[in-house]
Amino acid sequence: MRLKRLRLTNKQLINEKPTANSSGLFRIRAKLAYDGTNYAGFGKQPDQVSIQGEVEKSLKQIFNASIKTIAAGRTDRGVHARGQWIHFDLTEKSWQKVKDPKYSLNQVLPSDIRILEIEKVSKDFDARYSALWRRYTYWVADKTHQLDPLRRHYVYKFGYKLDLAKLNEASHLLTGLHDFATYCKPRENSSTVRNLMQFDWQIIEGLYVAELKADAFCYGLARNLIGAVLPAGGGAIEVLEPKTRLDKRQRTETIFQAPASGLVLEEISYPEAKLWAAQAKITRNPRVLPSI
Amino acid sequence: MRLKRLRLTNKQLINEKPTANSSGLFRIRAKLAYDGTNYAGFGKQPDQVSIQGEVEKSLKQIFNASIKTIAAGRTDRGVHARGQWIHFDLTEKSWQKVKDPKYSLNQVLPSDIRILEIEKVSKDFDARYSALWRRYTYWVADKTHQLDPLRRHYVYKFGYKLDLAKLNEASHLLTGLHDFATYCKPRENSSTVRNLMQFDWQIIEGLYVAELKADAFCYGLARNLIGAVLPAGGGAIEVLEPKTRLDKRQRTETIFQAPASGLVLEEISYPEAKLWAAQAKITRNPRVLPSI
Repeated sequence: MRLKRLRLTNKQLINEKPTANSSGLFRIRAKLAYDGTNYAGFGKQPDQVSIQGEVEKSLKQIFNASIKTIAAGRTDRGVHARGQWIHFDLTEKSWQKVKDPKYSLNQVLPSDIRILEIEKVSKDFDARYSALWRRYTYWVADKTHQLDPLRRHYVYKFGYKLDLAKLNEASHLLTGLHDFATYCKPRENSSTVRNLMQFDWQIIEGLYVAELKADAFCYGLARNLIGAVLPAGGGAIEVLEPKTRLDKRQRTETIFQAPASGLVLEEISYPEAKLWAAQAKITRNPRVLPSI
Repeated sequence: MRLKRLRLTNKQLINEKPTANSSGLFRIRAKLAYDGTNYAGFGKQPDQVSIQGEVEKSLKQIFNASIKTIAAGRTDRGVHARGQWIHFDLTEKSWQKVKDPKYSLNQVLPSDIRILEIEKVSKDFDARYSALWRRYTYWVADKTHQLDPLRRHYVYKFGYKLDLAKLNEASHLLTGLHDFATYCKPRENSSTVRNLMQFDWQIIEGLYVAELKADAFCYGLARNLIGAVLPAGGGAIEVLEPKTRLDKRQRTETIFQAPASGLVLEEISYPEAKLWAAQAKITRNPRVLPSI
């Protein structure tokens, strides 16, 4: 099963060098890590403290300009990141004035948000639409674990004993190109078809750690998938059950959403620079299941 | 080099079973883990929030009695623990009334303090004096690391590039039975002679992690030892320098104390129960260097 791909024209393949766009602005991209514990999520919201709000405040302070950022994924309240990407536009003059933007921004940002990388790129780069896939991890302690208080904000304590083989069996059945309507909150003009490339579990430092990789995650997908397979890993439901529910393509009332604190946005993959514009074009095209 | 040991009499070897002491109280011991970030340290202090204060408050709530606890080590402000031990005394009646003390205490304790184990023991057990040794870890990111915001309260970010071999060389030279006056804050009627059984470094998840094991740590010792060897690992001083300073047996103004946040009390070792009283007697005897 493969998504229908658009043909790339030569014109779409040439934009490699950072060039100003029509309004004289240059595109900047930055990689972020943050502890989401104390934030209302990535996205700005009225009267709430958000990651985006703090980042834009720091950009204003350092570059002396009002800057609107676009993120690869607007993580929920309490979700963490070690590999979030954003982009924004800036005048050449503002960019040149700051000698070491990463250092300067990290000096003014709160200690739970860090800029890991920042650079000028071609205007073709779109943090959200140029992405090929996102990878998340989810961290779980089971009934047999003493929850380490040093990890209390980053690990979900599940009340039953887990079985690694059952977790993997239930999770593997969910991978592939599917309509994930069962496990997504639907949004208007937006498809719930996604390609779940990886969903498996391993033991890291005694904890059960899931890795989830998909072209994109519709709203709530990562935590709903975790919530679907944990009861299978705990023996409360059959390992086939989460897949049976997936095939119904219908949200039910009984869906359990795993808590945000266990979830970390680890990595976002982009194609090489000359394909940024083309990939964005593909992504903006609504995902559909292949006709058989 | 070995500490002078006291001879054990038969009478000291028989107290294995939990027995009430003269005032009709039984001894209870508990193992604790905590995130020290938001506390003024383990020990109670006026107008400060402490680990001990929170633990005693929870004991009062669950056992309905005013309880004074004794800890193996009174960790400093900001220091963490995964294996702290405490003891306290309680009437048989209060103990029997609570069905699952670990569960009940963890229900009322703040989430950054956890009881890992709790049990009735012989009155010979003394959390502080019966201990054979303490083991700490210290976690460091160097110049080459991106500091993970999820670990910002648990890892010290050192500004220079570290060399694992140099760190180990400098640290190994400090092990053994020494007068650690250079690296301890002196206290009246208290020796600064300690047996540093282990001090080495390894890479864990890309971080430099020190393990320090000693019969006991005089005040400030763990963080002063880390502060002494980090500049050697970074190439700012010779690897012999921390040992040269140790041999002077004198505190100097230039001592660098590594920040509390990187330090975790991991483990405390006790002998078998029949030796608890005898070990306490040995420990209470001031440590001295062997005469040659």
